[in-house]
Amino acid sequence: MSEAAYVAVDWGTSSFRLWLMDRAGDVLAERRSQEGMMAAAKIGFAAVLQSHLDAVGAAAHLPVVICGMAGARQGWVEAGYIDAPANLASILQRAVPITGQSRDIRILPGIAQRDPKAPDVMRGEETQLLGALGADGEALVCMPGTHSKWASVRGGTVERFTTFMTGELFSAISRETILSLAVANADEAVDAMAFKSAVVAAFQAPAFAANLLFQVRSAQLLYGGSPAAAREKISGTLIGLELVAGLVGDEPKRGITLVASGSLGELYRLAFDTLSVAVQSIDSEDASRRGLAIAAKAIWTL
Amino acid sequence: MSEAAYVAVDWGTSSFRLWLMDRAGDVLAERRSQEGMMAAAKIGFAAVLQSHLDAVGAAAHLPVVICGMAGARQGWVEAGYIDAPANLASILQRAVPITGQSRDIRILPGIAQRDPKAPDVMRGEETQLLGALGADGEALVCMPGTHSKWASVRGGTVERFTTFMTGELFSAISRETILSLAVANADEAVDAMAFKSAVVAAFQAPAFAANLLFQVRSAQLLYGGSPAAAREKISGTLIGLELVAGLVGDEPKRGITLVASGSLGELYRLAFDTLSVAVQSIDSEDASRRGLAIAAKAIWTL
Repeated sequence: MSEAAYVAVDWGTSSFRLWLMDRAGDVLAERRSQEGMMAAAKIGFAAVLQSHLDAVGAAAHLPVVICGMAGARQGWVEAGYIDAPANLASILQRAVPITGQSRDIRILPGIAQRDPKAPDVMRGEETQLLGALGADGEALVCMPGTHSKWASVRGGTVERFTTFMTGELFSAISRETILSLAVANADEAVDAMAFKSAVVAAFQAPAFAANLLFQVRSAQLLYGGSPAAAREKISGTLIGLELVAGLVGDEPKRGITLVASGSLGELYRLAFDTLSVAVQSIDSEDASRRGLAIAAKAIWTL
Repeated sequence: MSEAAYVAVDWGTSSFRLWLMDRAGDVLAERRSQEGMMAAAKIGFAAVLQSHLDAVGAAAHLPVVICGMAGARQGWVEAGYIDAPANLASILQRAVPITGQSRDIRILPGIAQRDPKAPDVMRGEETQLLGALGADGEALVCMPGTHSKWASVRGGTVERFTTFMTGELFSAISRETILSLAVANADEAVDAMAFKSAVVAAFQAPAFAANLLFQVRSAQLLYGGSPAAAREKISGTLIGLELVAGLVGDEPKRGITLVASGSLGELYRLAFDTLSVAVQSIDSEDASRRGLAIAAKAIWTL
């Protein structure tokens, strides 16, 4: 077995992932937990990190590179933002060291779009972009999630990006409105027909989003229908609404790279396919880990 | 003082209003409480009604006419739906009597739009429409609320209507997403500038609704701004989104009647004014009471 060279951490709002890496960028050990920024702020960031370092037997001298919400104001140490247009390589140069630790620990900054007409921020996705596209990346990238990001990258520079609250709207609407009655006790199976027709409806009439959502309830009252179909209609409406905005203009003609994992990636692929839009898929977890590896190699010239 | 002739009740999801009325349609006494359908389903509908009848000293023979969610499946007695296109006068003919009561109590039905492409339901608003427009009504009516309704009425017939989840989306998004941080501790004063610019932004780019909402957070992170301004941006975005859909097509050229009360009515007037759309305003509570009065006179030939 090869020797560990560094530790890579993707520290999000509600999740924590750690990889023990060798010089070649291969994974020697891995940890996952729910100790994201929210939980770690209570337990203590140093203690959470140390417990996982101990679990993978990381030597005391190994450096650690971190991306994500651990660098937010409410995180461990604020890592600030690089302003867009932002060269992805410049992110590596602005990693913030955490002082008072026995080992070298650095947090990567986010990217801010300081445009009063379209203010936006990302933190963690810049590392995914670096991992997905490399330092010379060229693509329009869709990164689905709680706060989906669409980023236009040219020559390794993030020129513009746009956040959509799609995932968080889905959670709040499914749980905290009258639609919670429509989706109660839904089984896991995806109703692809319901999803696809909702994507098309939202794509064709985005202004009617707040009505299309209510139709989930009224259709069930008047015509019946399964809770799973209701859930997919909510999901399809919100993803369709995101896609109609993301696909505006000539930019999408360059081709779209979808950076996503698991069932969320499948839903987005189904949505793009429904609209006959071809996408190239990259696993979002792989992208984060590869981005952290590029950062580690540059910071410590490994 | 004139003699009481009947009792009118507007029984919504979360509110209860009762008026003791004379033959001329004047109010002799009034009751308001939070014992809407949700609360009354636990306490018992008959007990809630009787306690308020006792409080206004309603004689044992006085009849009671009810509109709203008390007639829903989860309500007191299901009063069903009249199908759209629905003549407002036909609602009166389909009032459902509640059996086993010592006095004559009737619940008015709602209206259902059985169109698989635009299924919709209303319950309570049909009585508001009757009260606002009379039996020969002609108007495009906007009725803001938890579930805002836009109804096209011609010759006393509700031809089409559309529900937008505007109010409920506002509550869920302000309380249950990251935007709750942006609006925390907001004072009461309305930030009209923030509201108006959000209405315009949503009106111009409704497809970007899920991004405009996230901008409330990112603008505050990058530029600061008050919690009240953040709240108004959320509200303006959602109301602007509703208006761009409601104002589609030639229908709005007929003129718009806004049926609303209090601060919500003021916000909608400000939104219409921002878009230079003239509206005629009618108080929604007056409209409900007048609709119930028309119903009572027709049912009991008072």
